[in-house]
Amino acid sequence: MPDKSTAQDMPDLRTDGIAALEWAAGYLDRVGDLPVLAQVNPGEIRAALPVAAPEEGEPFSSVLRDLEDLLLPGVTHWQHPRYFGYFATSASEPAILAELLAATLNSVAILWRTAPAATELEEVVLDWTAQLLGLPAGWHGHIEDSASTSTLAAIIAAREATGRDVVACSEQAHSSVEKAVRMLGMRLRRIPCDGEFRMRADLLGDLDDVAAVVATVGSTATTSVDPVSAVADACARTGSWLHVDAAYAGAAMVCPEHRWAFAGVDRADSLVVNAHKWMLTPFDCSLLWTNRPADFRAAFSLVPEYLRTPDAEDGLSLSEYGPALGRRFRALKLWAVLRCHGRSGLQAHIRSGVRLAELFEGWVAAEPGWELCAPRPFSVVCFRLVGSDERNRELLERVNAGGEIFISHAMLNERYVLRLAVGQMRTTKADVQWAWDVLRREAGAFADADADADAGVAT
Amino acid sequence: MPDKSTAQDMPDLRTDGIAALEWAAGYLDRVGDLPVLAQVNPGEIRAALPVAAPEEGEPFSSVLRDLEDLLLPGVTHWQHPRYFGYFATSASEPAILAELLAATLNSVAILWRTAPAATELEEVVLDWTAQLLGLPAGWHGHIEDSASTSTLAAIIAAREATGRDVVACSEQAHSSVEKAVRMLGMRLRRIPCDGEFRMRADLLGDLDDVAAVVATVGSTATTSVDPVSAVADACARTGSWLHVDAAYAGAAMVCPEHRWAFAGVDRADSLVVNAHKWMLTPFDCSLLWTNRPADFRAAFSLVPEYLRTPDAEDGLSLSEYGPALGRRFRALKLWAVLRCHGRSGLQAHIRSGVRLAELFEGWVAAEPGWELCAPRPFSVVCFRLVGSDERNRELLERVNAGGEIFISHAMLNERYVLRLAVGQMRTTKADVQWAWDVLRREAGAFADADADADAGVAT
Repeated sequence: MPDKSTAQDMPDLRTDGIAALEWAAGYLDRVGDLPVLAQVNPGEIRAALPVAAPEEGEPFSSVLRDLEDLLLPGVTHWQHPRYFGYFATSASEPAILAELLAATLNSVAILWRTAPAATELEEVVLDWTAQLLGLPAGWHGHIEDSASTSTLAAIIAAREATGRDVVACSEQAHSSVEKAVRMLGMRLRRIPCDGEFRMRADLLGDLDDVAAVVATVGSTATTSVDPVSAVADACARTGSWLHVDAAYAGAAMVCPEHRWAFAGVDRADSLVVNAHKWMLTPFDCSLLWTNRPADFRAAFSLVPEYLRTPDAEDGLSLSEYGPALGRRFRALKLWAVLRCHGRSGLQAHIRSGVRLAELFEGWVAAEPGWELCAPRPFSVVCFRLVGSDERNRELLERVNAGGEIFISHAMLNERYVLRLAVGQMRTTKADVQWAWDVLRREAGAFADADADADAGVAT
Repeated sequence: MPDKSTAQDMPDLRTDGIAALEWAAGYLDRVGDLPVLAQVNPGEIRAALPVAAPEEGEPFSSVLRDLEDLLLPGVTHWQHPRYFGYFATSASEPAILAELLAATLNSVAILWRTAPAATELEEVVLDWTAQLLGLPAGWHGHIEDSASTSTLAAIIAAREATGRDVVACSEQAHSSVEKAVRMLGMRLRRIPCDGEFRMRADLLGDLDDVAAVVATVGSTATTSVDPVSAVADACARTGSWLHVDAAYAGAAMVCPEHRWAFAGVDRADSLVVNAHKWMLTPFDCSLLWTNRPADFRAAFSLVPEYLRTPDAEDGLSLSEYGPALGRRFRALKLWAVLRCHGRSGLQAHIRSGVRLAELFEGWVAAEPGWELCAPRPFSVVCFRLVGSDERNRELLERVNAGGEIFISHAMLNERYVLRLAVGQMRTTKADVQWAWDVLRREAGAFADADADADAGVAT
């Protein structure tokens, strides 16, 4: 039976806040001891929850208790040091606290007047980040929730600027490109890739009908790098818009030694880099820059009378540069990250991820019975057990079900491939070693089972 | 000069968290003493900030210090008891703490497996809220960031389901409808309103080419209520999709005495209600229900190979029902709100807002020299000083510049109208009285200045 609320029970930011903070800190202390992948079946969490909201308010302690008892078993731990799935991410402490502060202020940046600090800080931190990444001076940046929205916005701006309705991207481009094209009722052209999963710019063909080409630096499956300069040349010939999707890898530009991969990005019309992937910032924080802000504004500005203010002449309302009117104070967490980690902290985080992935890659390369499946430009290793797709699929399910590590997969040249993505800030060499040990152990169990089967032993 | 970070300085969730929490609690203690509208000029906040990110990390205390010293002057205080602009909103304490917890977990619900708890809790709290609002059983709900996105998604689903490209809405519909139509390259049809700013359903005409009609319950300027039942009849005749925008007013359905305004909403194909407006939840939390989930899924489902999992057969990935792939754990804050306030707490909040708006409306009605400009179904009063648009515009700027209250405006029948929107949880009768006193005082100052001018006195 739910606890009944009394006047004293009304949630209080100080007393309940201490308890929430202690839960959060304790969670991060022990997250490495929890199974990475939630060990529940579909519907199990739902079934554990009441079918209706309470009539009277309950104390916040009940919420914390049920978070621990009922929800936590259903959490896949993105903050776990052995989370290696998709792209591993990190919510660093300054950013977590900044989210508390942003929720407290509850600034809604529908236009400058309603949130001057949120609006101007967003411009400032996007400028700071542009400098850190070595982007050209003067690009205009703002924050969207996800790369899905950033890419959607860029494609709309491109369509409006060009009057065309085709979008071209490589076979390895993220699904959000195809989704945006479908949402907009436009047409998609898939460009084949070379043997290293990079767009064949020589096959772009005639771009006369192409509104935008989406080039990817750090593609989702293999983190391959499209030849952006060559794509930029092709776009320049027909006035097609060049959108660069560096949602994951863009963060690596903070390190000079990785800048080679971004040659030509300075010629993009728009660029997306997700701070919530490899830049220590919790979801959601997708950074979208453009060197054609007037085209974004032309596509998205719609200021009805009730939102007109004398300040509007200053053109500072960031809702005029993207799809949504209501905008959250996301800049605060990115500001906290940039302040508390600094350039050196971001560089150290990138370098750690790359170094650990390189180590793992070396172990796979040296081990008989395993193979690497793609070059590794950054912190993601594509590999597999020599053998059938079915065996690799089974191996992935086994290692994930065990809860010690979590990895994901991809299809490359119609082969099922395992992916180990390093990027969680808690991940150490011991964690990557652990992953390799688990993979070899579980693969070994197959071998034993096979041997038993061959020998006619019941398993 | 920025503080240099040392090992001891690395932000810590416990020690820095206590300081952040104390800042947040202290801010809410004193927010009523701050000027509601930020008293800064465009560019002022930006100019106060460094031009580049620090090289080395700084302690979190520097972030808190600069939040207080540099950013706070640029904050328009949405949590202020005398914030009466646009739609007044509230971030209640349980929801603020839930945002801290959500950022700590950093669950990214790209698909069920990556966030079972976030996915299933989202379904559960949308079901709970549907019950509280009296929606039909069995509707499928999920959360988007803003009503802009919810309405965009509904229009896309409608276009896919009908194969048509016209969207109809009233002249008083929110700008997000027009923006969505522009983004999608569709066509907009504006339906005239009656004298009380409600859609003239009799003028809908032939809907054969209409993908969706957007009916509004609680329009942005006056909170007028479109005749949803009549619109539903018209939609039924041609198979047009009925999307109901109750972004602001939908929360009032929690009170039986307000249900009259929502007659016919049960016949909608989709419905948006923003929990971040009048439901004690900080931005962003836009609730989108549909009774045609298969049509949403048909429009938005795109599961590339690298996201396919054995769980996918259960169809529980909410990214298949909307534009974005990455989804934040927004359900946690709504859950905290529903748990800690309960049905009775939500009802009390709505009733308080309506009662205070009714009081204010009565004062305006009784005062010579002032006039009401629209009916008041909920908690927003449209009124003006008898006189020119210019005088009312000047009055609004004066009262907002003073910082005691913040109100916004609208154009109704080509007249400039003032809007007082009640909805902040801290607002009391004394605050509404204060607003009325400020408005009359500043209007009186005009009268004095006019008298002086008439008498030839320099002002």
